[in-house]
Amino acid sequence: VAAPCGGNGRCGKCLVLVHNPKKPCAQEERLLGGAQLAQGWRLACLTAVFDGMRVETREMPADMKIAVDGGLYQAQLDAPVKAQAFALAPPQLHDQRSDARRLLDALDGPHNIALPAQRKLPQVLRQAGYAGRAVVCADTVLDVIDGARRVLGVAVDIGTTTLAAYLLDLATGEQLAADAALNPQKVRGDDVISRCDHARQDGPDEMMKMVLDAVGAMVERMCRSAGVSSDEVYQMAVVGNTVMLHLFAGVSPEHIAQAPFIPAWADAWRIDAATLGLAINPAGEVLLLPCIAGYVGADTVAAILSCGLHEKKEQALLIDIGTNGEIALCAHGKIYTCSTAAGPAFEGAHIRCGVGSVPGAINTVGMHEGKLRFTTIDNQPPCGICGSGLVDLAALLIEQGAVDETGMLDADGAAQALRPYFDDEGFWLDADARIGLVQRDIRELQLAKGAIAAGIQVLLHEAGVTLDELEHVYLAGGFGTYLDQRNAGIIGLIPRTLLGSTRAVGNAAGAGARAVLLSRAMEEAARQVAREACYVELSARSDFQDAFMDHMFFT
Amino acid sequence: VAAPCGGNGRCGKCLVLVHNPKKPCAQEERLLGGAQLAQGWRLACLTAVFDGMRVETREMPADMKIAVDGGLYQAQLDAPVKAQAFALAPPQLHDQRSDARRLLDALDGPHNIALPAQRKLPQVLRQAGYAGRAVVCADTVLDVIDGARRVLGVAVDIGTTTLAAYLLDLATGEQLAADAALNPQKVRGDDVISRCDHARQDGPDEMMKMVLDAVGAMVERMCRSAGVSSDEVYQMAVVGNTVMLHLFAGVSPEHIAQAPFIPAWADAWRIDAATLGLAINPAGEVLLLPCIAGYVGADTVAAILSCGLHEKKEQALLIDIGTNGEIALCAHGKIYTCSTAAGPAFEGAHIRCGVGSVPGAINTVGMHEGKLRFTTIDNQPPCGICGSGLVDLAALLIEQGAVDETGMLDADGAAQALRPYFDDEGFWLDADARIGLVQRDIRELQLAKGAIAAGIQVLLHEAGVTLDELEHVYLAGGFGTYLDQRNAGIIGLIPRTLLGSTRAVGNAAGAGARAVLLSRAMEEAARQVAREACYVELSARSDFQDAFMDHMFFT
Repeated sequence: VAAPCGGNGRCGKCLVLVHNPKKPCAQEERLLGGAQLAQGWRLACLTAVFDGMRVETREMPADMKIAVDGGLYQAQLDAPVKAQAFALAPPQLHDQRSDARRLLDALDGPHNIALPAQRKLPQVLRQAGYAGRAVVCADTVLDVIDGARRVLGVAVDIGTTTLAAYLLDLATGEQLAADAALNPQKVRGDDVISRCDHARQDGPDEMMKMVLDAVGAMVERMCRSAGVSSDEVYQMAVVGNTVMLHLFAGVSPEHIAQAPFIPAWADAWRIDAATLGLAINPAGEVLLLPCIAGYVGADTVAAILSCGLHEKKEQALLIDIGTNGEIALCAHGKIYTCSTAAGPAFEGAHIRCGVGSVPGAINTVGMHEGKLRFTTIDNQPPCGICGSGLVDLAALLIEQGAVDETGMLDADGAAQALRPYFDDEGFWLDADARIGLVQRDIRELQLAKGAIAAGIQVLLHEAGVTLDELEHVYLAGGFGTYLDQRNAGIIGLIPRTLLGSTRAVGNAAGAGARAVLLSRAMEEAARQVAREACYVELSARSDFQDAFMDHMFFT
Repeated sequence: VAAPCGGNGRCGKCLVLVHNPKKPCAQEERLLGGAQLAQGWRLACLTAVFDGMRVETREMPADMKIAVDGGLYQAQLDAPVKAQAFALAPPQLHDQRSDARRLLDALDGPHNIALPAQRKLPQVLRQAGYAGRAVVCADTVLDVIDGARRVLGVAVDIGTTTLAAYLLDLATGEQLAADAALNPQKVRGDDVISRCDHARQDGPDEMMKMVLDAVGAMVERMCRSAGVSSDEVYQMAVVGNTVMLHLFAGVSPEHIAQAPFIPAWADAWRIDAATLGLAINPAGEVLLLPCIAGYVGADTVAAILSCGLHEKKEQALLIDIGTNGEIALCAHGKIYTCSTAAGPAFEGAHIRCGVGSVPGAINTVGMHEGKLRFTTIDNQPPCGICGSGLVDLAALLIEQGAVDETGMLDADGAAQALRPYFDDEGFWLDADARIGLVQRDIRELQLAKGAIAAGIQVLLHEAGVTLDELEHVYLAGGFGTYLDQRNAGIIGLIPRTLLGSTRAVGNAAGAGARAVLLSRAMEEAARQVAREACYVELSARSDFQDAFMDHMFFT
């Protein structure tokens, strides 16, 4: 049973149907509707098992739609890991240089040989007649190979909810495979705060193993589908929010969860793949891209790169609405960033019927010939509402007078056509399955969209630019791709004046990780962005609080 | 059953007493005496097991005397691994630098933090009020510790036969413990060639594990005896001959065994202790000192340092008679080195009754009041002859006319007092145990001493100096310490004119490893010596062959 809040009785998602239920507790009465409770639905995390209990669980579809494509910027191919050809003079009694010295003398740059490469070097040189190719990264020879072998890399985007991975040929830039998966850490909570709490209590090791295993499985699947060996993978570039990167490296992120929100590290970091137990080449390296702050991670840095904002040639806004909502503003040759606790609502968390982008999720809602219509992902029977459906539905309710300026659900003010969908509890798209919105959901949406709009306002103020001066708004993340921009404008998620210049850029973080894998200049750009970006801590600012209050309304 | 030749039927040492023996094979007849064969002694490696076989093995004492002290040169204390104290301003909302950045900004030098240190950093900083000490090596923080903790290092000398290790406090230079052990690889052969052959056939992994386990056990014993934790050990400096270092790192040394004698690597090399599975601090480093050539290893480099020859202030000779015989000559501001296949005889190999420095080994032989006398180590019943006893006995036989100029055993020419010790087969110090010398042993001794004397002559010629110009001869290794120098002169192992200026320097290789652990300048000196030393390959030179022939005689 999925438990987005980590089993803490907060999210109301771990529903089980008890055939012989006991009286619900107060928290269940708050989170679930009377009808649901009467049918016997209870929350698994709040229900004690009793003798003779009969329970039914509901299966949620597991194959979430995960955006893997995205990004705009094309970097020039110049991968940090490269194969250098060599042809050495065979040793003689009058030239007794060691195999290692002979090789290094012939290569341009490296002055170390990784242990696994050193172990195979004597045999490889003698079998190949002292000619071959050296796989080089910075000052180190990672491997010595023959002509047939490829030099591959893997880019990974570790989202709080989803993982995306890409297998690239580092010599040609060709993408050989892509893969996606759910982040298995979700059993420890759907948001980064839950993960931090869990790490504080039980340490980061279990969650590290979960994500490393999942990434390892993605690498294996991609290699199999591309018909290559994971031993040909020499570098992995990893992005993710700061908490996800901490857990990936087995470092507790717990102090990010509490003021003053301090990460254990934020700079770019190279770790031996073998140390992490990742099954790529034994001398392979994992590059963790740099983070900007505890809540503006390497995924945002990578998204900045993949929109070309690191070139600082335009005034533009980047909004990544994932499980958190990170915003970056490029203005006057400088990059400003902030983070708002905006995301979970759009990924289904804290929304009564909210779900991720799973088959059956209601993803569009609208009026057609005077009647309410909705679609679901893969045309499956509806199982909940995902982010884009939520935005559509809210916009519709506002336009049709069913939600007022202050966010109150208002059956009386609603257009005639919508009134049948109301009952005492809320507005129901599907009365049987009881999928719809309740007042509390609208409040969550107001908090989320208000936070993002307020974050944008504060960044603009900080940079001294106005909305009118912005040339582009880039919407990153799967949510952005499927979002109806007009409806996003209606609910006030995106400033209405910017709708014409808004572009969805898909998985921009994954695209940035791929760019770094293929371009030393992009790796350096990532470091520079992280070093120079101005991070604006919103929690400390009264102007953010004021803007937040203003933007909560639907005006 | 010990098998110095690795079970290849060459050394004649793996004796077993068969109570119902079958006919000996030709090789056994060649290697063993008629009396031995008649008693039922056979070689384990050449004897097939048969139904009803009854076998008795002889136990050899295992606690070999291993020299651990030595060295002359005192380096200034300046260990590459140091603790730096720090006191950081606690983080604030307006100073959200990561823990890592905050620490690195306060330290002088490092810009990386090792993974294990990064994992503990957040907790340590907060528990200690943002003050403490960072253990730093080059550009990396290895650990973050409190005031009570020590910063320790271990120096290791990996001999083909023996291992020596030293536990040092890197802040004070104090030696807290020392330990020695036999090299467990001896079951794969007593000399480096046997080890190379075994690595060629079965790979280096088993022998790597043997030596790593043995070194790990030494570290554990030393830490226990000093009352410290192995977690406080941050660096290990390792010396040994080139083959031993290869096996330590799990790199096959097989190509060193055959012309043109090429090592897989020779430069100084840092390896993570965790990669090798050595149980010191998880961020600890192993520094393998550089080698000069396939047969002049890091032990010789270290011995050069510990005699101060790297300063090149004198004309001096360093002779290390271990399992091989390495010679270094410092002359005219340059260092010349060579290696001779001289050693095994002095460590008991290829000598009928030869043994290492074990209790019961005959270690001195001489005439006293007209009678032959010998002593054994620890006054135990004689079990064989070790190196110093061999030199004494040979010198005595030469002086008493029992061995002529050409090296022939000559009962008729011998002084009256010695004649009773002869029989048809050889000269027996202990008739019951049949411990003594046979003609073949004298030949081995001639080959060994001839090779060393010829090596010295070639190096002198190469450097353009004469024996008279040498200020010192340093004799390294346990053998040198116990050697009667006068007798060494009589058999021609050391040029007679140099006896007055000869000094035994004990385990000079181990002393050099300790110096490197305590002094960055010495580490750099080691690299420089290895880089600049002139290696003279004797196998390619006719002048060596000529000198070798000359020096084989006892003149």
